[in-house]
Amino acid sequence: MQLVDNLKWRYATKKYDASKKVSEKDINYIKEAVQLTASSYGLQPFKVLEIKDPALKEALKPLSWNQSQITDASHLFVFCNKIKVTDEDVDGMMQLRAKTNNIPIEKISGYGEFVKEKMKEKSDVEMFHWTAKQAYMALSTALIACAELQIDATPMEGFDAEDYNIKLGLKEKGLNASALLAVGYRYADNIAQNNKKVRKPISSLFELLY
Amino acid sequence: MQLVDNLKWRYATKKYDASKKVSEKDINYIKEAVQLTASSYGLQPFKVLEIKDPALKEALKPLSWNQSQITDASHLFVFCNKIKVTDEDVDGMMQLRAKTNNIPIEKISGYGEFVKEKMKEKSDVEMFHWTAKQAYMALSTALIACAELQIDATPMEGFDAEDYNIKLGLKEKGLNASALLAVGYRYADNIAQNNKKVRKPISSLFELLY
Repeated sequence: MQLVDNLKWRYATKKYDASKKVSEKDINYIKEAVQLTASSYGLQPFKVLEIKDPALKEALKPLSWNQSQITDASHLFVFCNKIKVTDEDVDGMMQLRAKTNNIPIEKISGYGEFVKEKMKEKSDVEMFHWTAKQAYMALSTALIACAELQIDATPMEGFDAEDYNIKLGLKEKGLNASALLAVGYRYADNIAQNNKKVRKPISSLFELLY
Repeated sequence: MQLVDNLKWRYATKKYDASKKVSEKDINYIKEAVQLTASSYGLQPFKVLEIKDPALKEALKPLSWNQSQITDASHLFVFCNKIKVTDEDVDGMMQLRAKTNNIPIEKISGYGEFVKEKMKEKSDVEMFHWTAKQAYMALSTALIACAELQIDATPMEGFDAEDYNIKLGLKEKGLNASALLAVGYRYADNIAQNNKKVRKPISSLFELLY
């Protein structure tokens, strides 16, 4: 019941205690969880920016609806999706696969060609959103990792992606800012933490088909 | 270290033992985890179909690249994103919010109007992919729930979404099949489970910005 209990514990923290910092050990644990997240074809078509510099967080705040989490949270992670998965990306994944499991690259090159074809079937827009979906999978894992460590976290879409892309030079890197994750420790007096979690009943979220 | 250990344990199971079924208790646990998944504005704009009927799984197999997981896994979950979030959906969420925390609806109706506006800013295509991203968050949580229970699971994009939408009458319900999750128990002789997990190094997945 660990996961469900952890998910019940967490909430979208609105106010952070700016004086409390998340340890490097814990940050590394969150990163390892993100690294282990499943992705389609194993391509991991995303990158996560880690921001703890106060000046940079301050500069990003006005691009993020002026939300206080940006500056008050200990760390800000920017989950970026790759704009395009290239043949080189697929080749890189295949090389990693061959190396990790000590198999000749020739043995899996057919699969690599298959993946390249699948990538080419996607329009630019489909590709853009598809890589973002993979990034959201990682975001969800990061949230769960934080909850396990009793670290507060706020997934955030309230920011201007274009402004982030310019400010952080993401387009030149083939990336797009798709979601933020503020990570830190809640401000003790914050009343939002006492609200009951609001969720649709399972009976309306699920449907059994015969 | 629970989460990271669980993520290391799991793998994209290729071959299931069709004779082994996941208990209702475990299925309910997975559902509860999905229910608790964070979503943007708390809208939970997705629905998950649960399929355990052998005949229906058999009928879906040819629409899923004939992959054996569809029929051999104990349960097949179809993660569907809502095609559109309507004003009524937002109103429903606000009513749930008011009821859950016993607050007058008037107190949060301003927020409801804000969310409705935000929804209207999205083009149809953006909306479609945005709800799918929320569904992928839930998919990621489901994967982690399965791993915690040592239940095997395979996230699958290898299916024809249009065929699924028609076969399961999803469009009429305002839904789209965005990803599958096969859930069950691995076939004992399956060699894939011995492969080392292939993941990009943390140093290439993360970048520290100053």
